[in-house]
Amino acid sequence: MIQFVKKSCYILLFILTISCVSILSKTLKPDEPCKRIILYYHDILFDGTDLANATSAKVTNDTQLGSHFGMMVIFDDPMTEDGHLLSPPVARAQGFYFYDKKDTFNAWFAYTLIFNSSEYKGTLNIMGADPLPEKTRDLSVVGGTGDFFMARGIVTFRTDDFQGDFYFRLQMDIKLYECYKT
Amino acid sequence: MIQFVKKSCYILLFILTISCVSILSKTLKPDEPCKRIILYYHDILFDGTDLANATSAKVTNDTQLGSHFGMMVIFDDPMTEDGHLLSPPVARAQGFYFYDKKDTFNAWFAYTLIFNSSEYKGTLNIMGADPLPEKTRDLSVVGGTGDFFMARGIVTFRTDDFQGDFYFRLQMDIKLYECYKT
Amino acid sequence: MIQFVKKSCYILLFILTISCVSILSKTLKPDEPCKRIILYYHDILFDGTDLANATSAKVTNDTQLGSHFGMMVIFDDPMTEDGHLLSPPVARAQGFYFYDKKDTFNAWFAYTLIFNSSEYKGTLNIMGADPLPEKTRDLSVVGGTGDFFMARGIVTFRTDDFQGDFYFRLQMDIKLYECYKT
Repeated sequence: MIQFVKKSCYILLFILTISCVSILSKTLKPDEPCKRIILYYHDILFDGTDLANATSAKVTNDTQLGSHFGMMVIFDDPMTEDGHLLSPPVARAQGFYFYDKKDTFNAWFAYTLIFNSSEYKGTLNIMGADPLPEKTRDLSVVGGTGDFFMARGIVTFRTDDFQGDFYFRLQMDIKLYECYKT
Repeated sequence: MIQFVKKSCYILLFILTISCVSILSKTLKPDEPCKRIILYYHDILFDGTDLANATSAKVTNDTQLGSHFGMMVIFDDPMTEDGHLLSPPVARAQGFYFYDKKDTFNAWFAYTLIFNSSEYKGTLNIMGADPLPEKTRDLSVVGGTGDFFMARGIVTFRTDDFQGDFYFRLQMDIKLYECYKT
Repeated sequence: MIQFVKKSCYILLFILTISCVSILSKTLKPDEPCKRIILYYHDILFDGTDLANATSAKVTNDTQLGSHFGMMVIFDDPMTEDGHLLSPPVARAQGFYFYDKKDTFNAWFAYTLIFNSSEYKGTLNIMGADPLPEKTRDLSVVGGTGDFFMARGIVTFRTDDFQGDFYFRLQMDIKLYECYKT
């Protein structure tokens, strides 16, 4: 019987050690988000004439550094669940991007996703670089509110469509790794 | 005696399980911040004449998308403990906001609160959307330094006063949910 | 023997308590980062003539608030391991800064460090105030991707060189306190 108790204690100690090590090292795994949402972002840059449909506008002066270097755009864009511009938006993306390379299109984004649907109410705040020549680009979800209270994670951008200077569509694959029930 | 030891071990195992589950699920609660600070933000936009009192200035070109869409303002604003503009500031708010909707006032903020008082030394970094028509708006505290080393949390905005285009006051209710002693 | 088992259980309980308390309080220590990288940032502002060497450009209108208040610069700057501009860059810094004080140089930064070397692949996203008169300034690392998956931390800026309006060099001492193996 004493043997049994000693054995139990050793097992307990083993479980304790494993648990605490796993908690302390706190290994988040890229392929195991606690929440995942895939949405499509539609940006319709104001072309000087079509006020009604435009969702974004250029706000800075041209620089001489070429390929749109320094061009900053402020947007209030619809987010849809599929790639159709006219699908009902499930969120708005509000923020800005700018181009920052001389020789190619390379962007940088900071924005908020605002959800106000039957499924989600709340916001996700996102920032990071968007080097367009890469097939996928990862940005950071740096915080959230409402249903996304204190969330953190990664958003992966994929260019889904690009029509000249005035329309582009991005797939945004939102993966949260810190989720808190509220 | 052996019964007692077995019982002790079961109790221990129970405590262990509860503890580890509570740590792993890591439930933060919106109404239980580890620190809370309420401050007032005063923005005095430069009106073209009053240099001495202005704390912010418009830096972008007008767009044609209406209702200040695209207007970006850079600020260095005083933060006070009460709603009086002339109270001694306990922090500065440095950063920018812009308006991003065609048909209504809707803003987006990114800024740093810089504390240099007897009570706090350090900074909090904040970003998020500020949809003015809502009574309260939540933004993310995405990081901190000094006394706020590695902090995260939520700031709730309430419009406290709005005098035309050139002065407004926000109550900023800062709730931190990740606090680290340094 | 029973005494031994009881003693073991008490020791176990003690270890459990210490472990859980240390985990729950989760004390990160400023002088114990889980990763540290020191790099140098070189900013060559476009002076109107030298297109080839410029790495950044001014994008906003002048304001009347003095000392560059409101001047915003978008950059794509090389990061080197030592202070030499012509050393091989180990990362790019892409983002923007602006000046926000009437009477002195005081900046605010938001940018991404993009690593694509043999040592690191991935990004770090950073934002915060940069009050130049201070000898050291702390900004927040608010997220990361790739080898820096979900990282958080602090970047300490030191001005390393300043040559008129068109070149400055910062030492960026990057200290991560949340590191996740991927």
